[in-house]
Amino acid sequence: MSRMTNVANNLPEVGLNPSFTGFQCVICGQEQARNFADNVCPTCGVDGILDVVYDYDRMRSECSGAGAFASAGAGGLWRFANMMPVQPTAAHTAWTLGDTPLHEAPRLADHLGQKQLLIKDDTCLPSASLKDRAAAVAIAHARLLGVDHLACASTGNAAASLAVLTARAGLRSTIFVPAKAPAAKLAQLLLHGATVVPVDGTYDQAFDLSLAEISSHQWYSRNCAHNPLLVEGKKTVALEMGFALTRGFRGHASIWPDVVLVPVGDGCIISAVAKGFAEMHQLGLTPAVPRVVGVQAAGASPLAQAWAGLDAGHEKLSGKEIQATIAPTACQTIADSISVGIPRNRIKAWRRVAATGGGFVAVSDETIIEAIGLLAARSGVFAEPSGAAGLAGLLAARDAGWVRAGDTVATLVTGHGLKDPSAGLSGVDLPTAVPPLPTS
Amino acid sequence: MSRMTNVANNLPEVGLNPSFTGFQCVICGQEQARNFADNVCPTCGVDGILDVVYDYDRMRSECSGAGAFASAGAGGLWRFANMMPVQPTAAHTAWTLGDTPLHEAPRLADHLGQKQLLIKDDTCLPSASLKDRAAAVAIAHARLLGVDHLACASTGNAAASLAVLTARAGLRSTIFVPAKAPAAKLAQLLLHGATVVPVDGTYDQAFDLSLAEISSHQWYSRNCAHNPLLVEGKKTVALEMGFALTRGFRGHASIWPDVVLVPVGDGCIISAVAKGFAEMHQLGLTPAVPRVVGVQAAGASPLAQAWAGLDAGHEKLSGKEIQATIAPTACQTIADSISVGIPRNRIKAWRRVAATGGGFVAVSDETIIEAIGLLAARSGVFAEPSGAAGLAGLLAARDAGWVRAGDTVATLVTGHGLKDPSAGLSGVDLPTAVPPLPTS
Repeated sequence: MSRMTNVANNLPEVGLNPSFTGFQCVICGQEQARNFADNVCPTCGVDGILDVVYDYDRMRSECSGAGAFASAGAGGLWRFANMMPVQPTAAHTAWTLGDTPLHEAPRLADHLGQKQLLIKDDTCLPSASLKDRAAAVAIAHARLLGVDHLACASTGNAAASLAVLTARAGLRSTIFVPAKAPAAKLAQLLLHGATVVPVDGTYDQAFDLSLAEISSHQWYSRNCAHNPLLVEGKKTVALEMGFALTRGFRGHASIWPDVVLVPVGDGCIISAVAKGFAEMHQLGLTPAVPRVVGVQAAGASPLAQAWAGLDAGHEKLSGKEIQATIAPTACQTIADSISVGIPRNRIKAWRRVAATGGGFVAVSDETIIEAIGLLAARSGVFAEPSGAAGLAGLLAARDAGWVRAGDTVATLVTGHGLKDPSAGLSGVDLPTAVPPLPTS
Repeated sequence: MSRMTNVANNLPEVGLNPSFTGFQCVICGQEQARNFADNVCPTCGVDGILDVVYDYDRMRSECSGAGAFASAGAGGLWRFANMMPVQPTAAHTAWTLGDTPLHEAPRLADHLGQKQLLIKDDTCLPSASLKDRAAAVAIAHARLLGVDHLACASTGNAAASLAVLTARAGLRSTIFVPAKAPAAKLAQLLLHGATVVPVDGTYDQAFDLSLAEISSHQWYSRNCAHNPLLVEGKKTVALEMGFALTRGFRGHASIWPDVVLVPVGDGCIISAVAKGFAEMHQLGLTPAVPRVVGVQAAGASPLAQAWAGLDAGHEKLSGKEIQATIAPTACQTIADSISVGIPRNRIKAWRRVAATGGGFVAVSDETIIEAIGLLAARSGVFAEPSGAAGLAGLLAARDAGWVRAGDTVATLVTGHGLKDPSAGLSGVDLPTAVPPLPTS
């Protein structure tokens, strides 16, 4: 279960952010030094995911004044290196990505009766999903450690992201997949030069084999819930929103989201978003922490079900209580990328969301398909089903009382519709043909 | 055949670049004022495509010194408004796009024995192709004219681009397509809210119907070869390369392409690229004009065939001679987006390419498929077949003597592989499955 045990018992400290002080278990709270080489808490085991801990006083001094948010000279997500665990040197920052568009969507807002709607559009990242933010940090960290081979278990966006970015960086990748995964998705990984290992079994069996092989071959683990540094990469989607909105956004003197809607599968992205907004506010960079609302597909909604089962006091539960509260569910939804019955990062996600005053809701597949159409026709953004789930959750969040019509709402679109076009196109009827002009 | 006859006999002058002085027919050289409302030369008819003419002395004074290249306050392609015909106001610049990545691809260069290779990656534009650059100018111009409905004939990237960007801008679009076009491509246009008119006939019959309907309904024409302003939007792909490379590119004190490889269908993109590089040099902004080499699929290669049929003096042909030299060919290639038997913008393309010392080559479909794999595995860029044609032409251009191994070569990737993944994935073999770990 070690991330890097065969590379070094303790990780080398090169390239780390001086504000990054260590890790803390989301269940028992036990702390680990920042050179801790395992991924999970030695006491709590696989559910004892670690959270990256910073010295915010030190970080504040590095992220204020003229340099607010900005690491000198970097563009894209490395602009925020001061708020991330890893501070890569120029050789890594060359593989820059990020700075994805933040759209206003006034026509979509009007249609939904919402005062203001912002769309953070991560479909235009290199592999067409938000997962590139985690892979970028994995690659930067692997290079700092001198490791040239990365691996993960995934059939979807995390795998595509690892294959694309290792091809760019000239590193190797091995990806463990259930043998029954769609052939076209596997072929795309192979096209990018990844080694693909189909495992005769479930996703969980592929995951277990990946951990064993990673340990035995001394590879770098890009399994996101397992490697706590990767959530910090995903955090940059929130930091980019804060950066854009505090700089006078498109003529608005002041615009700040009251609520941010985030699709939820394993819970990594929403943990990252809630943490990013909380940290920006703690550092005095932003006016408030928006309520972060997680949206799950109704067919795979363990967090939303557990959240709804509790009347109040969500924010008071201990890690152990959260662990006990969330029961595994079936997973049956068109939204592949969030089809998770027992989210690996559920404790971090619950706690971070609760701290913002948000919560978790569930939406039907029909609502997700409708949201794909609304995003496409009224904001020009084509989302895969999981990517549209955030918007799909808007009405559910209003019903739950977490969003008012007068609120400014932001939603993340996490993956491109071209990755899985069939769902979005299923409700579209083709018109009948007309004759050409008569020949003259 | 008028672009806008029913809107106004002469176009209003609002929002035009003061350096933009008029149009010139590519065949007879006849000039038109900048408020000319027709698309093509009244003397030469449909082959008499117009080229936008500028006052370069005036433009030079606006594009030099601290403001070199830069229009104040604009990002993305509107940064270059000083070099474009249209200068939109803030309301239009809000729909910013551009600033696509320029990658170094050292591993791909090594593999091909090329000193240096740069990839301009337009796959990450909003509709995942370079065509967004033309649509952005069409939308800005339509808004300046007070027209809220745009139309074109296309089944491919131009149509997707119009549908996506009109959805963003809150404008209407009508797209004329041959009724036999793939249903999934049409469904995507409908999803984005476009009106799709399937025409029982060929692409040319759909095009003719589009012109008639555009004229009758007073719509704005986004037919690129026909509307000369749109080539100016595509020019920004070259301007962005010049802008990046003259600013100290990734630690290189001085790097400048000797050759730029461009996929060629209708000839619009390559006309734009060659014009952009010529203009930047004329304005004193860049060190040299690279040789621009057009790459066609062997199964649809009228320009490459005509070029090869002439021993020398390509640059000396008059418009009429170019017109007579290029014979229509069959079009049979996997590279849909460049499958054109008689390029509408062939005269402009030939002349602009000849002026750079470049030329046109043809490549087989097999070479294109190989290029998709090389781009994916060695640079992490997934291209559709036409998007990989530029790189596919590198070896052919070396054989033709237009590229030396010691040259710095840039290539445009014009469309994303997710638009048409089957070709790229056709040569990939899936590995056999392995058993999971034994349960303990």
